[in-house]
Amino acid sequence: MIRTDLAIENREIYNKARRLEDKIPGVDVEEEEKNNIKITRVIINAEEGAEALNKPVGKYVTLEIPDNDQLTTEHEHNISLNIGRELKAILDNKPKSILVVGLGNEKITADSLGPNVVDNLDITRHILQFAPEEIDPNTTSVCAISPGVLGTTGIESSEIIKGIVEKVKPDVVIAIDALAARRIERINTTVQISNAGIHPGSGVGNRRKGLTKEELGVPVIAIGIPTVVDATTITNDIVDRLLQDNISEDDKSKLITELTKDNNYVVTPKDIDDVIISLSNIVAEGINTAIFD
Amino acid sequence: MIRTDLAIENREIYNKARRLEDKIPGVDVEEEEKNNIKITRVIINAEEGAEALNKPVGKYVTLEIPDNDQLTTEHEHNISLNIGRELKAILDNKPKSILVVGLGNEKITADSLGPNVVDNLDITRHILQFAPEEIDPNTTSVCAISPGVLGTTGIESSEIIKGIVEKVKPDVVIAIDALAARRIERINTTVQISNAGIHPGSGVGNRRKGLTKEELGVPVIAIGIPTVVDATTITNDIVDRLLQDNISEDDKSKLITELTKDNNYVVTPKDIDDVIISLSNIVAEGINTAIFD
Amino acid sequence: MIRTDLAIENREIYNKARRLEDKIPGVDVEEEEKNNIKITRVIINAEEGAEALNKPVGKYVTLEIPDNDQLTTEHEHNISLNIGRELKAILDNKPKSILVVGLGNEKITADSLGPNVVDNLDITRHILQFAPEEIDPNTTSVCAISPGVLGTTGIESSEIIKGIVEKVKPDVVIAIDALAARRIERINTTVQISNAGIHPGSGVGNRRKGLTKEELGVPVIAIGIPTVVDATTITNDIVDRLLQDNISEDDKSKLITELTKDNNYVVTPKDIDDVIISLSNIVAEGINTAIFD
Amino acid sequence: MIRTDLAIENREIYNKARRLEDKIPGVDVEEEEKNNIKITRVIINAEEGAEALNKPVGKYVTLEIPDNDQLTTEHEHNISLNIGRELKAILDNKPKSILVVGLGNEKITADSLGPNVVDNLDITRHILQFAPEEIDPNTTSVCAISPGVLGTTGIESSEIIKGIVEKVKPDVVIAIDALAARRIERINTTVQISNAGIHPGSGVGNRRKGLTKEELGVPVIAIGIPTVVDATTITNDIVDRLLQDNISEDDKSKLITELTKDNNYVVTPKDIDDVIISLSNIVAEGINTAIFD
Repeated sequence: MIRTDLAIENREIYNKARRLEDKIPGVDVEEEEKNNIKITRVIINAEEGAEALNKPVGKYVTLEIPDNDQLTTEHEHNISLNIGRELKAILDNKPKSILVVGLGNEKITADSLGPNVVDNLDITRHILQFAPEEIDPNTTSVCAISPGVLGTTGIESSEIIKGIVEKVKPDVVIAIDALAARRIERINTTVQISNAGIHPGSGVGNRRKGLTKEELGVPVIAIGIPTVVDATTITNDIVDRLLQDNISEDDKSKLITELTKDNNYVVTPKDIDDVIISLSNIVAEGINTAIFD
Repeated sequence: MIRTDLAIENREIYNKARRLEDKIPGVDVEEEEKNNIKITRVIINAEEGAEALNKPVGKYVTLEIPDNDQLTTEHEHNISLNIGRELKAILDNKPKSILVVGLGNEKITADSLGPNVVDNLDITRHILQFAPEEIDPNTTSVCAISPGVLGTTGIESSEIIKGIVEKVKPDVVIAIDALAARRIERINTTVQISNAGIHPGSGVGNRRKGLTKEELGVPVIAIGIPTVVDATTITNDIVDRLLQDNISEDDKSKLITELTKDNNYVVTPKDIDDVIISLSNIVAEGINTAIFD
Repeated sequence: MIRTDLAIENREIYNKARRLEDKIPGVDVEEEEKNNIKITRVIINAEEGAEALNKPVGKYVTLEIPDNDQLTTEHEHNISLNIGRELKAILDNKPKSILVVGLGNEKITADSLGPNVVDNLDITRHILQFAPEEIDPNTTSVCAISPGVLGTTGIESSEIIKGIVEKVKPDVVIAIDALAARRIERINTTVQISNAGIHPGSGVGNRRKGLTKEELGVPVIAIGIPTVVDATTITNDIVDRLLQDNISEDDKSKLITELTKDNNYVVTPKDIDDVIISLSNIVAEGINTAIFD
Repeated sequence: MIRTDLAIENREIYNKARRLEDKIPGVDVEEEEKNNIKITRVIINAEEGAEALNKPVGKYVTLEIPDNDQLTTEHEHNISLNIGRELKAILDNKPKSILVVGLGNEKITADSLGPNVVDNLDITRHILQFAPEEIDPNTTSVCAISPGVLGTTGIESSEIIKGIVEKVKPDVVIAIDALAARRIERINTTVQISNAGIHPGSGVGNRRKGLTKEELGVPVIAIGIPTVVDATTITNDIVDRLLQDNISEDDKSKLITELTKDNNYVVTPKDIDDVIISLSNIVAEGINTAIFD
């Protein structure tokens, strides 16, 4: 019932449930802080860790940034540089060609992060192809698509992307998505970069199918930022906090359904429209930096 | 701490606190249901009632409509007709000239109801003034403005409107606003029409000053629809529900602040962007109907 | 140098050049007028006709509608019905599954017809696939995509569509595009429906590759509306009109380049933003009618 | 019939008609070029000059900038600095409070320059008023409004602004407007700053009333950028060029009406949507610089 797309939150939940402090078998963790940005690298390197955290094997890098509405242009630039550096590290060998995918519904503000990032990228594939004289031939080929969402296209994003991957044949796919978090303070303040792809049920719009190496045939790097918390999640947390264990799972489930009606409500900052624009610029600049600098 | 702009919710709160069923001194209530729309008319006709409900003397008509995403074109039209009829009744004598004010921030989805309604109105004032040969001279003069919000204009909406009212001299002002409700199920399903104007602290954007007859010199009809519930409100309700009275007001206040961080979060439907467009059309058609049919 | 996407204009040009009245070898023409809509069906049925009109063999149906800013809701509905009927006729056997493609750049008003039409379509494919109990199993499967443009994706629209067609395997593709016309009075008043697909160099955005049966492996129906005239086209016409043949082709070419600077300017109505919204609704309703009624 | 809002173009027309080179009685002209920006200051200092140029007495500073789609971030910043410096010079004594007015229709791309500039300004009036502890008390008070257009509000922009000026009582009004030019190459490449206010018939939307010191009671600085050329203007120029004086005014007028149908068409760059966003940022940064640096 509790939905989170952040490995860092799965780790918190796991540790709390076990009353552990830190070390989870099959999971390595590195932490670092610079310029007000806390970076946590969760590396799940064995099935044991994957099961513990309920996430596939892979690297999950989290950047925790200060609250968005206090950011100066300089702060934003600094966050972009850090995203760029972590993305570069996770891309391993510098790819020659990249397809960037902006997941989500451009017309629903909280779900529009992906399409907005795509709108701010430096695209080079068509220049390399049709005007090679205008560009250094060693430039990485970048192309990008916002495939829309199942409800408005009638087609799974993963089907659209697979069709395009087979034509474009990129070395790697970078997929951007708006995520759901578990805690209000994560909204718009946490950037997760992972080489484990995008998995079913992730994202604000609750995708049905994943975007993974198995599915697409090329590595998939996922960049996600939580933009909402489900109303059910937040209610569940309050109930847990207040009643601790003095309620049966059954009664709790009934109570939460009653309190939140159905699962169609989300908690979101009042100024979400502004914040999405700012975050999209930050992430796009981060990607541009990782690829071209 | 609990914020609601709906007289119907104030009444519920009052009755619940008193363990009363219905009759509040100084308050008359009429209820009616037709075509799936429940209409409640709360008439506060004495100071005693105003104090009880914490609302100024006046009429507050509430239309409760079925959940928005199941509405057919026909349902929408029917709701518009009902809004039109109730608005007409509250306008008393048919005014000769009307200024419609779309309160709120067009760029923040949950706050954009007012400006979107204004975009869909039939405007006649300039035709009567500059092309009188193209229009029946008895047509009501309608003009409209979306004054923006304090944070982006630096000017109180009420100052802007007062300046314009002094130039345009309308018989009545109709002000549209996105409201905050107390209960999730009110979001986008309740339309309140009132002749008591708009009061400080109302609305999603938490206006500082009201739009009232005292302020503007002409009657002010307010049309509002709740589009959010504050995260603090919903948390407060859950806490009340779970702990009943076994918590001091002080501890409760601390707990809620901790659970919701600050007051910058709202609960909103996932598809708020779509819903606002649909509601704006419904309200605009309702106003057009009340004036021109 | 003269650019037009309308078969009806190629015919005018051909006839004028030949000083002919009507009959072109290899070309049949039917004309009809009802409810203020003039319908012309140009059928190119032999290579001879294709060469004469510089258009591939196929059917080209043109609906000429009255100027957009005088349209009532009823007129709009009537135009939709006519588009629906002509589209149905050109679709031959009722297809079981359709992919609708909205060509053009959503962010450039004059080029946004296609994406806007797609936003207003009734999509059924995902319901048939994931919630078959909610829908009549004989419903035509409709899905849709707006692939963006080469300049912002780095990928030819035709490559994207081909990739998707190979996954989705529709019986037919319907592609919507904003066109360039030769004469100002065609802008926003002429709808062309054709079974000859979309050809290189068509459209406001000057596509490089076509969308045709040869390219995609399934029939391609194109629906287009001119939304601009190139500034060079209009200047060319004025020069021709004023100087008739008293100027060499070379001098004319120089003169036009000088008068219009480069080919980056278009002539468009002042209220293009409003008109595109209205036309998108009309075309979407037309397609919905052809498929579902 | 020929419509231009640029003093620099009136001067060209005057000089050409007289076959003069430069000096017009009652008019002083200064020219300067730096960093690829040509600055022309036309000072009309006597009625004689006002009549000659068909513009009121006042200063008209024109910045001619290179074509917009080749601008780097650095170029844009440089243009903003130059706009800022010229605006500062024309503001005379540093005003204590400023009302910025964004004229035009936000929903019509070519007319949306003003509202878009307003969205990017640094607003301080409400902070000085409601949170004085957060701001240096010597900060200039800046507030801003986009009054919409007559066709959608039913109220003249000048009436709305006058009403607001009487409430806010600024020392000066700065009004931003999208203009019509006479020559294609001026579109989006020429910025005019003037202390003569905005006059009837100016702007893309053809305003009916001006915004002037006489009208509002405070000085009005106008900042305008041409975003369109009327189709009639461009046609007139072509006819003049081709036929020179071998056509009567009457015949010419008929010919132009026939060629351009009515006056509802404009010539505009294909990428106008992108360009307006870029220009709005440049002008807003220029104003912010003039006021706060």
